[in-house]
Amino acid sequence: MADTVFSKIIRGEIPCHRVYEDDHVLSFLDIQPLSPGHTLVIPKEQAATLDSLSDDGAAAIGRVLPRICRAVQAATGIREYNVLQNNGAGAHQAVFHVHFHVIPKPNPEQGLGIEWLPLPSVGNSEALAAAMRRALES
Amino acid sequence: MADTVFSKIIRGEIPCHRVYEDDHVLSFLDIQPLSPGHTLVIPKEQAATLDSLSDDGAAAIGRVLPRICRAVQAATGIREYNVLQNNGAGAHQAVFHVHFHVIPKPNPEQGLGIEWLPLPSVGNSEALAAAMRRALES
Repeated sequence: MADTVFSKIIRGEIPCHRVYEDDHVLSFLDIQPLSPGHTLVIPKEQAATLDSLSDDGAAAIGRVLPRICRAVQAATGIREYNVLQNNGAGAHQAVFHVHFHVIPKPNPEQGLGIEWLPLPSVGNSEALAAAMRRALES
Repeated sequence: MADTVFSKIIRGEIPCHRVYEDDHVLSFLDIQPLSPGHTLVIPKEQAATLDSLSDDGAAAIGRVLPRICRAVQAATGIREYNVLQNNGAGAHQAVFHVHFHVIPKPNPEQGLGIEWLPLPSVGNSEALAAAMRRALES
């Protein structure tokens, strides 16, 4: 995959407002925040989308997310927040290196805006779940 | 914290279209999907929000997310998707047991709708990052 601005941040070639770092994970403030304290959490492993990240890389991010969320809450005083991770340009991904957004939601006007429109009908859920179980077993 | 519908699903008291299960994690189809294959991934540990989940519980979810995302892609044929985890009623959380949504994005009309409105000015980012670092170290 191609190098991205996040690879350059990991290598220290571009500065960032660092929040947390360990052997596998880097966290820093988003430079175009949706709300105060909008933070990114990325793997040092180079993967464009979550489905292409290693299990270990994804586990390392999972492990630190609760701590980073608490730090965002402590520093901003905002209790509510969304965690968002986008995959693909059509799904609002702009930088093609996996990144989890932690976005404080201080009020209805700031933070992540969500449009929630369930499908009018569900279809054959059990067949779909069975197809996913087969994919997981293969 | 209070028992939720997800506790009942974990205990098998309410059925679900199961996608994946291990000692720490359960994954099943959302019953009000935003798109075909909309899947939930939850910890068996009872925690209302991500900031109150244990490091191990969060790592276990992180570890299986890439596999589940690949299974959603394989079963639906949809490549793009969003992963969303909401914390607090004001941040669109409806069930107060941690859950990660994996939401396929087949086209602009289906899946997660996102409104992305960056703040007009950023404020003192380095002071905020420093406050987060102190919170992480304490």
